[in-house]
Amino acid sequence: MADPRFDPQDTDFANRVRASFERQDAMKTIGATLTKVEPGVVHIELRWAQALTQQHGFLHAGMLATALDSACGYCAFTLMPVEAAVLTIEYKINLLAPAKGERFRMEGVVIKPGRTVTVAEGRAYAIDAGKQKLIATMGCTLMAVVGRDGIKH
Amino acid sequence: MADPRFDPQDTDFANRVRASFERQDAMKTIGATLTKVEPGVVHIELRWAQALTQQHGFLHAGMLATALDSACGYCAFTLMPVEAAVLTIEYKINLLAPAKGERFRMEGVVIKPGRTVTVAEGRAYAIDAGKQKLIATMGCTLMAVVGRDGIKH
Amino acid sequence: MADPRFDPQDTDFANRVRASFERQDAMKTIGATLTKVEPGVVHIELRWAQALTQQHGFLHAGMLATALDSACGYCAFTLMPVEAAVLTIEYKINLLAPAKGERFRMEGVVIKPGRTVTVAEGRAYAIDAGKQKLIATMGCTLMAVVGRDGIKH
Amino acid sequence: MADPRFDPQDTDFANRVRASFERQDAMKTIGATLTKVEPGVVHIELRWAQALTQQHGFLHAGMLATALDSACGYCAFTLMPVEAAVLTIEYKINLLAPAKGERFRMEGVVIKPGRTVTVAEGRAYAIDAGKQKLIATMGCTLMAVVGRDGIKH
Repeated sequence: MADPRFDPQDTDFANRVRASFERQDAMKTIGATLTKVEPGVVHIELRWAQALTQQHGFLHAGMLATALDSACGYCAFTLMPVEAAVLTIEYKINLLAPAKGERFRMEGVVIKPGRTVTVAEGRAYAIDAGKQKLIATMGCTLMAVVGRDGIKH
Repeated sequence: MADPRFDPQDTDFANRVRASFERQDAMKTIGATLTKVEPGVVHIELRWAQALTQQHGFLHAGMLATALDSACGYCAFTLMPVEAAVLTIEYKINLLAPAKGERFRMEGVVIKPGRTVTVAEGRAYAIDAGKQKLIATMGCTLMAVVGRDGIKH
Repeated sequence: MADPRFDPQDTDFANRVRASFERQDAMKTIGATLTKVEPGVVHIELRWAQALTQQHGFLHAGMLATALDSACGYCAFTLMPVEAAVLTIEYKINLLAPAKGERFRMEGVVIKPGRTVTVAEGRAYAIDAGKQKLIATMGCTLMAVVGRDGIKH
Repeated sequence: MADPRFDPQDTDFANRVRASFERQDAMKTIGATLTKVEPGVVHIELRWAQALTQQHGFLHAGMLATALDSACGYCAFTLMPVEAAVLTIEYKINLLAPAKGERFRMEGVVIKPGRTVTVAEGRAYAIDAGKQKLIATMGCTLMAVVGRDGIKH
């Protein structure tokens, strides 16, 4: 997917994304790192680890989905106003091939930003011996939440 | 959901499910346990843990989805023949409320079994101070795979 | 599914649903009729017609989805305030069996109502010689819209 | 989306698609036409018509989804062997904007072809006064069926 062009409402969006990402202990647990934060685009990478595997020794689809959902959520978040938090309403993931590889790149891209509801798409790639393969696609609906108790970005 | 009535093709289905579950290191990493294995029905439970949280201190939706996807996959697996492995083709999850609670019960139920393709539904409940709340629903499509290299149950 | 119990915000909800349904020419084109309108629950029926078929002579999945999406949208609408219109954000449909039958009943039920976002589920049944069969399931996310130009209920 | 490059198994794929499309009375009812048939890519167009509208006078989302699902199904069908029929297992549609326009172009593209299961993506565009706007995205899972009674392409 070619990256879209969006104007962020808050020029400090990348710092907001990084600060929120740091507060997610689940991201530390799975070893995810933020590798790209641009307006409407976020990439997250994951390394293969035994602790994240399913019964065939591949990366568990849920771990992949966790990182891909985060990429979608944060790409939506880059375009939200400074006071908003982002919640995932729903997502759908198609698993195209086993998550077999040394590392994995999750790409989230905004398809349609909105005041309340944003739609994003995700792509997950497995990278093995320098070659990459599309292994999952995601469609994701996110919501900007302002002033809801206990929900901050 | 009332539990459906299905006749398993392999009477040893529960042992197959438990053995496969044991081989998933990702399930150990998130602390998931199998709490119900019946024909067409599997429940998985998860306890809240700091290592599984998102930025608001609730359980990360991805961790919830990981366990719910496994419940859906294994409920389909209970009805498959002894030589089959199960793969998730796709799932969709609606997140209804923050995953706030002491523990979480994921229920997977087969809606339509099939020789190749099985459709299952999932429900996730948060349990807090003895009360339970529906926090997520899933629609999931699974595939029975026989004789594919590197894929065993 | 057992019908949920919800308190409508507007006691005249059934008339609002019926009036909106009447304004949908697409519902006339496919011959859909409203057969149940209760708080959080709407049923729509469709008769088999040659004009609605796919290449095997069964009802086209899209026609089924059209009626099922409407059942989901209107069940959400029953619980919305009088000034709101309802928009479908997204839906996912699993087609379980060919839509073979004399008539079809689409059931929409609210799973989680919300001020802005409502989640509903749909079930489609084929009815043939007095027997009914589940042929499709839907998960659907709806949005209440107030004061948006050109959007009325 | 840039069009993918796929080698069809049957060089007569375009005639198979057109013949199957002609047998769908639902496509005639909604006035859909096939405008592109290439390996892994199918476009379908629809003109606005009063008979296809929802309560705001826009094209009913279900009619859009019907044509978009067909575009996804037929793009998968272009890559299937000559004896196969195509069935939709499931699809998910995100509605990004009201279907307001003179005509609508639905694009289906194969993301991952498979012997049994194919994953496709759809995009719907509204065209008004020469300008086009993305109004819906679809993720769709299709199945190749061979030798099943009553199911032909």
